[in-house]
Amino acid sequence: MTGRIECPSLRSRVMSAEDAARHIVSGSTVGMSGFTGSGYPKAVPLALAARIEAEHAAGRPFRVRVWTGASTGPELDGALARADGIEFRLPYNADPIAREKINRGEMEYFDMHLSQVAPMAWQGFLGPLDTAVIEVTGVRADGKLIPSSSVGNNKTWLDRASKVILEVNRWQNPALEGMHDIYYGTALPPDRVPIPLVRPDDRIGEPYLRCDPDKIVAIVETESPDRNLPFDPPGEAAHAIAAHLLEFFGREVKMGRLPQSLLPIQSGVGNIANAVLTGLIDSPFSNMTAYTEVIQDGMLDLLAAGKLRMASATAFSLSPEAAARLNADMGAFRDRMILRPQEISNHPELIRRLGCIAMNGLLEADIYGNVNSTHIMGSRIQNGIGGSGDFARNAYVSIFMTPSTAKGGKISAIVPQVSHVDHIAQDVQVIVTEQGLADLRGHSPKERARLIIQNCAHPGFRPALQDYFERACRDSYGKQSPSLLHEALSWHQRFIDTGTMLA
Amino acid sequence: MTGRIECPSLRSRVMSAEDAARHIVSGSTVGMSGFTGSGYPKAVPLALAARIEAEHAAGRPFRVRVWTGASTGPELDGALARADGIEFRLPYNADPIAREKINRGEMEYFDMHLSQVAPMAWQGFLGPLDTAVIEVTGVRADGKLIPSSSVGNNKTWLDRASKVILEVNRWQNPALEGMHDIYYGTALPPDRVPIPLVRPDDRIGEPYLRCDPDKIVAIVETESPDRNLPFDPPGEAAHAIAAHLLEFFGREVKMGRLPQSLLPIQSGVGNIANAVLTGLIDSPFSNMTAYTEVIQDGMLDLLAAGKLRMASATAFSLSPEAAARLNADMGAFRDRMILRPQEISNHPELIRRLGCIAMNGLLEADIYGNVNSTHIMGSRIQNGIGGSGDFARNAYVSIFMTPSTAKGGKISAIVPQVSHVDHIAQDVQVIVTEQGLADLRGHSPKERARLIIQNCAHPGFRPALQDYFERACRDSYGKQSPSLLHEALSWHQRFIDTGTMLA
Repeated sequence: MTGRIECPSLRSRVMSAEDAARHIVSGSTVGMSGFTGSGYPKAVPLALAARIEAEHAAGRPFRVRVWTGASTGPELDGALARADGIEFRLPYNADPIAREKINRGEMEYFDMHLSQVAPMAWQGFLGPLDTAVIEVTGVRADGKLIPSSSVGNNKTWLDRASKVILEVNRWQNPALEGMHDIYYGTALPPDRVPIPLVRPDDRIGEPYLRCDPDKIVAIVETESPDRNLPFDPPGEAAHAIAAHLLEFFGREVKMGRLPQSLLPIQSGVGNIANAVLTGLIDSPFSNMTAYTEVIQDGMLDLLAAGKLRMASATAFSLSPEAAARLNADMGAFRDRMILRPQEISNHPELIRRLGCIAMNGLLEADIYGNVNSTHIMGSRIQNGIGGSGDFARNAYVSIFMTPSTAKGGKISAIVPQVSHVDHIAQDVQVIVTEQGLADLRGHSPKERARLIIQNCAHPGFRPALQDYFERACRDSYGKQSPSLLHEALSWHQRFIDTGTMLA
Repeated sequence: MTGRIECPSLRSRVMSAEDAARHIVSGSTVGMSGFTGSGYPKAVPLALAARIEAEHAAGRPFRVRVWTGASTGPELDGALARADGIEFRLPYNADPIAREKINRGEMEYFDMHLSQVAPMAWQGFLGPLDTAVIEVTGVRADGKLIPSSSVGNNKTWLDRASKVILEVNRWQNPALEGMHDIYYGTALPPDRVPIPLVRPDDRIGEPYLRCDPDKIVAIVETESPDRNLPFDPPGEAAHAIAAHLLEFFGREVKMGRLPQSLLPIQSGVGNIANAVLTGLIDSPFSNMTAYTEVIQDGMLDLLAAGKLRMASATAFSLSPEAAARLNADMGAFRDRMILRPQEISNHPELIRRLGCIAMNGLLEADIYGNVNSTHIMGSRIQNGIGGSGDFARNAYVSIFMTPSTAKGGKISAIVPQVSHVDHIAQDVQVIVTEQGLADLRGHSPKERARLIIQNCAHPGFRPALQDYFERACRDSYGKQSPSLLHEALSWHQRFIDTGTMLA
């Protein structure tokens, strides 16, 4: 039963999840592992949720502040949110129950640049961290921890927390050992030094997490799968977007602005991202690399096809089929993948140095190229900004991709003015929809508007956008970024009022 | 007459500004020196403007695309804009005539993150550069160029341009020689390496600009002062803002979140920035440093007082009195100042590593902490984003400062929703007005709104903001960042319609 806990002195701390959860007190801050549904603790949060429900039933308040790497799974965010046990959440959420609580105003949520979570915790700006709950693959005889399927902020949580609870998950493949690269060279200013990484392949740290054994108050053994979501096959729009993008890459290579191996790829998740990655299998580009947040199905395909030399990330985000494939053939993959702390996978210094090609999704873009990635109709949060700001601001080329409409054509992804801004126009260099691609580099706002309306907008919304832009050019207060303020957000208001942006 | 041109082979290329300007052809792109009114060419642009006016009078089109470091002076932007000679401008403008042209829709303007101009030029994203026009302090016998009172993008323009025109300005103090640090270690990915700077004091390059002598088609000798603007003495609001900020610094030091020497300061220009810097003279902090864009009057005072150990920037931005003082006492100052290329002074890698304290102005902030630095009423550009994005995103603490009202109380600097976003809420950690300071670190949007309304808004606008926020919390579509879309920009529309935001 304790085969994965090789450190004898720690075996005595093995206990049930219920007993472990008793170490967490109401009002405290808990730093959990987990990034895009990988490597999150699966037993202690469930036990904590049960305890919270019991306390609430007895009329006693019990809520905690929850920090993670990024999104987790239903056993963590879902269970705790359902128990009304989360007072404050950072830095990212994708759980539907938590999302509802947030958007009803019942849970405070601070969505952050994912690269900044660890530094801000060290800087003391987020308050003290009471307890860390971290999933690991195993505990070595020397007490070092073998990380799980995500690294996220685990190093920082283990270092900063007063108490540590470990979940040792036998479901995780023991062959993960050695795949991680935990960098222990970070510091607070004025003692920061250059991060010595110049290729996505570079290993600059060590394969294990350190943890003061005296802080470990509980170890819980589990055997539970990660929340691996089914693969959503790319539709027509995704394939069209991928085709526009591959053509763009080909042109950039031809013009000498990208090497034949491209530059390190960053890609979000989802079916558009997978369509682009799959498209790269049959592309003329070779010896590619990825420096990204997560390794998803498409990356695995590219690795298997020999097109991708290696992939660096902070987590896996795989479908059950891809997870099974990886586990079955780990030998073929493991030396070509590195998992790092998210402050390194998303570090502005490294993204700019490596010259990443950033590819991210969006909710809506406006005619000037400002992008809303988070707030539906300006107020209702979908997930969070995640790492998109880290990559978009610092990328060699910053690309945003989306179908031109949503909700069966009732929402236009291109609007007169975005209802919320996550990425300012300066950080948005290319926008691609199934309609086409707008290369915005080096263009003024009005030049950008013409390109976006012409190349990206859906024909059903294009005339209205063109009409708005022309009237704004005529009647706007200033004409650098012409706008009609009483009309700028009217498409969103119309959707709220009538269920469609169409007039 | 050619005492500052010590390279014999180049003396033959000395000519009049009129003759030099003939090397510039219509439709071409011209990269000029100049950053905040320092070190810009003063004769060739005037001659070019005269030539353009003559061509226009003869019915012939003549316009150029103008790239610089940042803002320049009336002899450059003012003269060329008046002649209707600028077709496209990047990356920053502060000239009133050019501003009018831009806001009438007669000139295309791309305002950029100042750290990204040089890399994007190298990446080929901005198109070819035909001619560089660069002011220097002198030309050495070996052909190397002694930079002037700003560095900006001069290294990149000299390297990338097909033809080079030099202005050798005798007005510049020869003691500038040796003050500059020109880093020649940049590269395109995948060949980028860490930038080896770990203290603001570090010199990582050489004191001179290199230039292929075969590209130099003209040298013009000038004796003209920089556009040094009169010092605008800080008023009551500026002093109140400075007092709030100094109290904040004191608290941060006490809590162990900042060292007693603080961390490298970045400061914008203007009377609020000067009030803060002046306030630091009587503060308990010592052995301070600055890693910033420009050295303004307040920095000079701090250096003179011995509180600032050294200041690193890309340009001077001084009043005539301060410029005279610096010139008279250069010996006491010169070893404690370094001027660098703007891609280095503003480099995200370095700003994050050093942990800069960023202090920038704003036009308006909304209740959630999004900041508009550029577009009045959402469409009329004031200057540009400049380096504020480089610093705010990567700073240790990102501070924005503003009086709580403008236009004699008719405009509130705190609004329900900003009409344009330059800095997203995640990049805005502290907002200070004369009313007070809001420390937004680690807070959710609704928590931020309460702090900003309570601490920063003017009492004349506070009830209306509070009322909006309460109704938004009740009626908003989603309640992560509650908003009422039909009302969110109504304050701006009211100002356009009636001349005041007051209902």
